[in-house]
Amino acid sequence: MNKAQLFENIKKKGSFLCVGLDSDIKKIPVHLLDTSDPVFSFNKGIIDATAEYTVAYKPNLAFYESNGLQGWSSLEKTVHYIREKHPDIFLIADAKRGDIGNTSSMYARAFFENLDFDSVTVAPYMGEDSVKPFLGYPEKWVILLALTSNKGAFDFQFMQDKVSGEKLFEKVLKQSQNWGTDENMMYVVGATKAEELSGIRKIVPNHVLLVPGVGAQGGSLQEVARYGMNSQCGLLVNSSRAIIYASSETDFAEKAGLAAQETRDEMTALLHDYKLI
Amino acid sequence: MNKAQLFENIKKKGSFLCVGLDSDIKKIPVHLLDTSDPVFSFNKGIIDATAEYTVAYKPNLAFYESNGLQGWSSLEKTVHYIREKHPDIFLIADAKRGDIGNTSSMYARAFFENLDFDSVTVAPYMGEDSVKPFLGYPEKWVILLALTSNKGAFDFQFMQDKVSGEKLFEKVLKQSQNWGTDENMMYVVGATKAEELSGIRKIVPNHVLLVPGVGAQGGSLQEVARYGMNSQCGLLVNSSRAIIYASSETDFAEKAGLAAQETRDEMTALLHDYKLI
Repeated sequence: MNKAQLFENIKKKGSFLCVGLDSDIKKIPVHLLDTSDPVFSFNKGIIDATAEYTVAYKPNLAFYESNGLQGWSSLEKTVHYIREKHPDIFLIADAKRGDIGNTSSMYARAFFENLDFDSVTVAPYMGEDSVKPFLGYPEKWVILLALTSNKGAFDFQFMQDKVSGEKLFEKVLKQSQNWGTDENMMYVVGATKAEELSGIRKIVPNHVLLVPGVGAQGGSLQEVARYGMNSQCGLLVNSSRAIIYASSETDFAEKAGLAAQETRDEMTALLHDYKLI
Repeated sequence: MNKAQLFENIKKKGSFLCVGLDSDIKKIPVHLLDTSDPVFSFNKGIIDATAEYTVAYKPNLAFYESNGLQGWSSLEKTVHYIREKHPDIFLIADAKRGDIGNTSSMYARAFFENLDFDSVTVAPYMGEDSVKPFLGYPEKWVILLALTSNKGAFDFQFMQDKVSGEKLFEKVLKQSQNWGTDENMMYVVGATKAEELSGIRKIVPNHVLLVPGVGAQGGSLQEVARYGMNSQCGLLVNSSRAIIYASSETDFAEKAGLAAQETRDEMTALLHDYKLI
């Protein structure tokens, strides 16, 4: 999927919501544990109830790997199901991978060939050759960690460069623009750091930003839109727990749908406010 | 496994070699492709031929994930095989994971509960809460990326802090000592940056260092020992391609064994030189 197609979907759905499929076997409703693949049953329910309101899904790999072989199978089924039922949805492998070039190529093969994801989140610590192998696939995307939503972001990401005065996350934003373009690279910027978004927009005015941290982590959607939105929206705002665990009973899918719908409504209003629809 | 047990194994085997099981389905000998699980057949051959000369194995997850469900199954079988046949071997999941706390807990579950690895490599970019969940398991280890062996290491890892003058990798070494100890944390330091090892040893005199980059990447074992060895050896030196792809014919296991033996002999000599055995 390219950037123009993503923006078309955002306008069509009045939504820039990404639903995080952080589906933990220990947290899903107990009645699903009797099915042959509980995590897939859960995801299917969530997807059917939320697809109307979302433009992207983001399975976080940790939740699948923690369940071993069965988990990997649930992930494959989930990807196939979304691809088959909702081909217009942007699919993110939230994997935060990154290794020496030779090895990153293998991760690219895993997520772009073996599994048909549109994008994968990548950690920048190992630099250019750890990121580049993911950029060789047409209409596939790297989503590079810049400023994350967690407390630990303050440990290294705000470190200031002795020479330029730039913070590490700013250096990541700048340097990585030599590796890819706004047609194959996005950045992760946490909603809990919304006040940094206007500075970030000066460095990357045209890139799409994937913004986690709204919902359970406490970030504000209004602030994110105010500081981060650009003329093509330029935002995918993720919500995981607040949507997928809206209820832990048999009505989990219905309640997830309602939570997604509510977020979509807020987003539609914001897209109107900023005159994008 | 604790640090004293690892050192005992190093002395007993006269080796601080770690064999990297970067087993690529596209590179293994073609005659194995007829077996039901070619990658596991390959690993079994390599393990049987090299276990005498090595104290650790390090499957890199990318090579298994790139092969999907089948790949994850090969990985599980490999881990079980090593655990059963060679219980004294230190097992490293080279995964370079790291995510918000809630999610890193899931990765810890994947590698320490579902799969019985002794350790997992972790990327430091997201800071303390991305690392801590891995440290809650007795006799399990985090191996934190500090200074990597690849060219991209120069992009961010050498960035100097405006206030302290410390480089990013030095900051990672220092700060992370508040999170764990030399009994549950090791560091990745590339052999291609051997000249940095003496400085690194001043910051972390007692920690074990996992050193990739000897072999195909061009690092020198002598240099690594000279600048990095401590009174308990304190080194695990990894070699992947130079050992596992020593031959691409039916004699692949035999040739891998010879390559591992040769490296072990060099290591035994170094352990003698430094009066550790």
